Formats: sequence, C-alpha cells, structure tokens
Amino acid sequence: MPSYHLYYSPGACSLAPHIALEELGIAYETTRVTIAEGLNTRPEYLAVNPRGRVPALAISDVDGGKALTEAMAIMILLARRFPQAQLLPEDTVQFARAVEWMGWLGSTLHQTGVRTVFRPERFVSDPAVADKVAEKGREMVRSGVADIDSRLEGKDWALGERYSLVDAYLLVFFRWGNRIGLPMRSQFPEFTRVMDAVRARPAVQRAVEQEGIQIE
Amino acid sequence: MPSYHLYYSPGACSLAPHIALEELGIAYETTRVTIAEGLNTRPEYLAVNPRGRVPALAISDVDGGKALTEAMAIMILLARRFPQAQLLPEDTVQFARAVEWMGWLGSTLHQTGVRTVFRPERFVSDPAVADKVAEKGREMVRSGVADIDSRLEGKDWALGERYSLVDAYLLVFFRWGNRIGLPMRSQFPEFTRVMDAVRARPAVQRAVEQEGIQIE
Repeated sequence: MPSYHLYYSPGACSLAPHIALEELGIAYETTRVTIAEGLNTRPEYLAVNPRGRVPALAISDVDGGKALTEAMAIMILLARRFPQAQLLPEDTVQFARAVEWMGWLGSTLHQTGVRTVFRPERFVSDPAVADKVAEKGREMVRSGVADIDSRLEGKDWALGERYSLVDAYLLVFFRWGNRIGLPMRSQFPEFTRVMDAVRARPAVQRAVEQEGIQIE
Repeated sequence: MPSYHLYYSPGACSLAPHIALEELGIAYETTRVTIAEGLNTRPEYLAVNPRGRVPALAISDVDGGKALTEAMAIMILLARRFPQAQLLPEDTVQFARAVEWMGWLGSTLHQTGVRTVFRPERFVSDPAVADKVAEKGREMVRSGVADIDSRLEGKDWALGERYSLVDAYLLVFFRWGNRIGLPMRSQFPEFTRVMDAVRARPAVQRAVEQEGIQIE
C-alpha cells in the first residue's frame, strides 16, 4: 500500500486535493506549509517543490516519492488511481469538460484574478501601485464569479448530475470570493446553492476542519 | 466521421492544439480569430466562446457542437480520442506528469508571466503603470524559462523518451520568450535543443506555416 503525503496551506487551492483525499477515505499524512508565514519559501519545502507553491503530493511508489505538483494534476492522478470513487468522469468528453473547468479556474480565475488581489506585489515591484493591481483583480474576480454563477444555473453540480472534484475545486474560489468581500450568498445564488451541497459532504467538512478555515 | 473546427489566433497558445490536429492527420477546419485585431471580442466569436479566449474546438458530435475551450482540455480530448497517436501518455502517473507540465505552463507561466508582458493593461487600469507590470512580468518569464531549461536537461523530450503534446505546448512559450526578447538560443540551450527537435516534425511545420508565424 503506497503512502500519500499532502503539503498544503490552509485555504489555498490545495484544499481541493485535500478534499479528494478525504473523499477517497485512504490514509495520508499532511504537512502544513502556511504561505502567510512564508513556510513555502523555506529550504525544507523547496526540497519538496522547488517552485515553492502548494499543493504538492508525495506518493511513495511514484518517481521515488518525488512530489507531484499542480492541484489539477494531483486531482487527476487520485481520480484515476481510484476509479471506483468516481471523482472525475471517465468518459473522454466529460473528462475534457472537467479539465476545461479546472483549467480555467486554475489559470484565468486564480492567476490573473485572485492572485492579483492577494499578492499584487508579485505583479508590480512598486508598492505604491500594487493597490491598483489589486483593484483591477477584484473586478476580474467578480466577473469570473458571475460567469461561474451563470454556468451553474439549473445544474446540480458543475458537470451536471454527478458531484466531481470540479465542485471541490470551486469551493476554493467560493471561499476566496467571500474573503475578497464579494457578496457571494446574496448576489451569486447558483454558485452558493452548489457550494452548500458541496459543504454538506462529510469529506469536505473533514478537510475544511483539518485546515482550520472558514468558508464564509 | 465527426468534423472538427479549431478557432485560433496566430502564435497564441492555440498553436499547441493546432499542432495536435496536424499530428493526428485528421481533417479539420480552422477560423483565424486574430487577437491583435480584436476578432476575439466580436459577437461572432463570443457566440463560440463567451469568454473571448482562444483556442476553442467545436466538434460536431460533442455537446451539439458547443465548443470545448482551454488549450489543455482540447489537447487531452484529442489525445484520448485518438490513443493510437500516443500524443499523451496513458499511464496514470505519466499522464499526471503531463498535466503537471501543462497546468504550470497554462497557469503560472502564461497567466502571471507572459500575459502580464503582452497585456499589462489587463492587470492595471492606469496606463502609466502598465509598463511596471510588464517589466515585472518579463523577469517572471525569464525565471520560468530558466526553470524549463533546467528541467529539460538530459532529456529527449519533456516527459522523457517520447514526444508528447507537452513539447508542442512548450513551443508556444519558446516563441514567446523570443518575442519578449529573451536570448533563448544562447542562454537556454536545453530548451532550444528540445524545441529544435519539435520544429523538425512535419506536423509542427505545417501548423506553424498555416498560422504564418515565426518561431525565432
């Protein structure tokens, strides 16, 4: 039985693979690499992921334990290793739709949206103008959240009838929307409805509790 | 036989799925949606992809022709539909490593790197400070390209012994590095070596020629 070791920062996008591990019900270890405390830039963690980003998942029987990085890659590996859990669709078209969702969330909404709000100093060296970057990023996140809301209209889950890791990943962005101060519950009812269903899942509750975070 | 229709902008990340279609040798149509001319924001294209981004791939037998978006999702769909072409690995771990590469390229390097250089106005409304965003982005791209260079050391291809769509995707970033003015050939020899091998492929040459672009 291979061992799994997740490196996460509370409330970061590592929450989605964390939920995946809980959904699988397998044994795994965790190391908290709190970004707000700079733990991700310490030598111990750079030895795990030289890019200093979370999540990372080290698996004893994968490449000699060399960690897999990128939230989407980790979720896909876990879903494919444990197909009986049906965390992502197997059908080629449905799987591609899942990747489309996760790809857009991880690139456009995370990197050009949320990251510019939380870490504007990464986009401009002059601290005096960092606020302007964050302001523009907030608009972008609002527009992305509205896009999500409209796409979830009339659907039980992001991919339709079945819960998937796309929904778990969406929870990260729902929480970030709240943190940024967007009126998620009042203005984005479809997104909120699906996230309430996600949050009702015991595996999700366990991951959220372990990370010690609040969603709203 | 389903029909395939690719929407691309010359030299955008749509080049990677364009190469994939050429590698498969299947019939497909294209529509050029040149971002520099704003064609991606016209109503005709927003009807295809409301987000106004390229690439998009409409397939007659997929969701009533509703286009699939996100470069990675398109590449994965094509690779899985045509497994005999071996454009991406089937093995779970190797596939996850491919997603890790593509995820990092599409999120970190594209969105927080290249995009801030080419479209700094998307990150800050004040045009007077856009240059500062682009300057920081250029540093980030240089650092990302150096990261790629070191990861390709001693390897024939990004994933090891076999060519994959990760290599095709890397060509997009190699070209962007040149466009940004980085001394790709002199300072990043490993990256250049693998890209020379990519560019020797007839399918790659056809896609590049059809888009009317220069790599260097």
